Amino acid sequence: MYTPALEHLCIVMVETSHPGNIGSAARAMKVMGIQDLRLVAPRKPYSQDTWALASGANDIIEQAKIVPTLPDAVADCHIVIGASARSERTLQWPQMDARECGTFVAERLRQQQKIALVFGRERTGLTNEELDHCNTLVHIPMAFDFLSLNIAMAIQVLAYECATAMRLAMPNSATSTDPDEALASAEAMESFYTHLEQSMIDTRFLDPENPRLLMRRLRRLFGRAEVTVSEMSILRGMLAAFAGRKFHARD
Amino acid sequence: MYTPALEHLCIVMVETSHPGNIGSAARAMKVMGIQDLRLVAPRKPYSQDTWALASGANDIIEQAKIVPTLPDAVADCHIVIGASARSERTLQWPQMDARECGTFVAERLRQQQKIALVFGRERTGLTNEELDHCNTLVHIPMAFDFLSLNIAMAIQVLAYECATAMRLAMPNSATSTDPDEALASAEAMESFYTHLEQSMIDTRFLDPENPRLLMRRLRRLFGRAEVTVSEMSILRGMLAAFAGRKFHARD
Repeated sequence: MYTPALEHLCIVMVETSHPGNIGSAARAMKVMGIQDLRLVAPRKPYSQDTWALASGANDIIEQAKIVPTLPDAVADCHIVIGASARSERTLQWPQMDARECGTFVAERLRQQQKIALVFGRERTGLTNEELDHCNTLVHIPMAFDFLSLNIAMAIQVLAYECATAMRLAMPNSATSTDPDEALASAEAMESFYTHLEQSMIDTRFLDPENPRLLMRRLRRLFGRAEVTVSEMSILRGMLAAFAGRKFHARD
Repeated sequence: MYTPALEHLCIVMVETSHPGNIGSAARAMKVMGIQDLRLVAPRKPYSQDTWALASGANDIIEQAKIVPTLPDAVADCHIVIGASARSERTLQWPQMDARECGTFVAERLRQQQKIALVFGRERTGLTNEELDHCNTLVHIPMAFDFLSLNIAMAIQVLAYECATAMRLAMPNSATSTDPDEALASAEAMESFYTHLEQSMIDTRFLDPENPRLLMRRLRRLFGRAEVTVSEMSILRGMLAAFAGRKFHARD
């Protein structure tokens, strides 16, 4: 059941504390046919545990990219999915359960989009700032709220769901190859958010001293929308045009 | 999503070598709401790793039953499912993949049947003799045949599939409460197989010096059939009747 499109799925682990978990995660990925591991500022160097637990997935560890921040890790990805231990948050992020995530990922991989599944720290997960970089969240339904899955177990379950959904969806493979209809990369989205925020500050819509949750809500909106390359040109062009006019009409 | 019927699902680990794997397995079960762990002749006593990896699932370890053989472990179960790393075997056992297993288990739990999911040794899995005690096998589809899942990872994936299938199937709960229509327990099946084998030896249909695979094929047949309590009375009555007649007509 090796499915080449899984090459476009990467696993991102943020500030992992236990080097053994990186090894277990590599094995969990490998058995499901996922190869691309990215590590954001791991807390400790690889240990004997890393290699012992990787058990046959050493190549994944050897090829893993180590980067300083989450935006660096997902710059080339079109969809960023954050793993969340719980399903409730104060500000609502879009949510999927693990089964829905598999279907979601399989559909988008078949459209040749590049997808990141992001896993946070063992104890504290992802920060809200990191969640801001995610288009959507996924959680694995559990029997008890006070428990959590080990991080490598969570990677195993989601890798399994993605691989299973790919396998079940094999026959259909209608894809759009128009590059304008491809999704904008996370890097392009970040650049857009910076532009947007500056535009809002310039126009005094956003007070940097009291930003409230404005950017977060906008990230949520655009993240959910899955903006295409051609739509991004429009948005950027629009922002540039707004800045050029300096909003004379209103001042 | 706590589902009481998962109380009728037990996990059996056969001759586990690494005490840490027992801890990880307990945590994997607990997060999915499965409580009943049975250990067949574990190779080593619990270690620090067991408790460290159980992390919040200590109660499962404390309550785990330790028994000398697989038949002891599954005596009260109606359905015994063996986990297999590969999907091909010389003699065909009935097979399911992990998703099918979830649906299968959920259906039978709703009928109040008691089910065992059996996991073999870390390196060598289950012996053919142990597989003979299984009604059916389950395998987790993987990208590469030469790799295998860590045993606790495999337990996590199957526990997840069972819990998910229970959750998805929640609304329907039509069950038959006629005790005669309940499935015969594994203990009743074993007693029947012993009776059957002796009957075949007595009648010289089976040569104990050259048994070939006769009993295995019959176990396969009856295991697949999911024999009910009332059918079992018929089978046992039939065997007793055969023995009483001593097959005069043929001799």
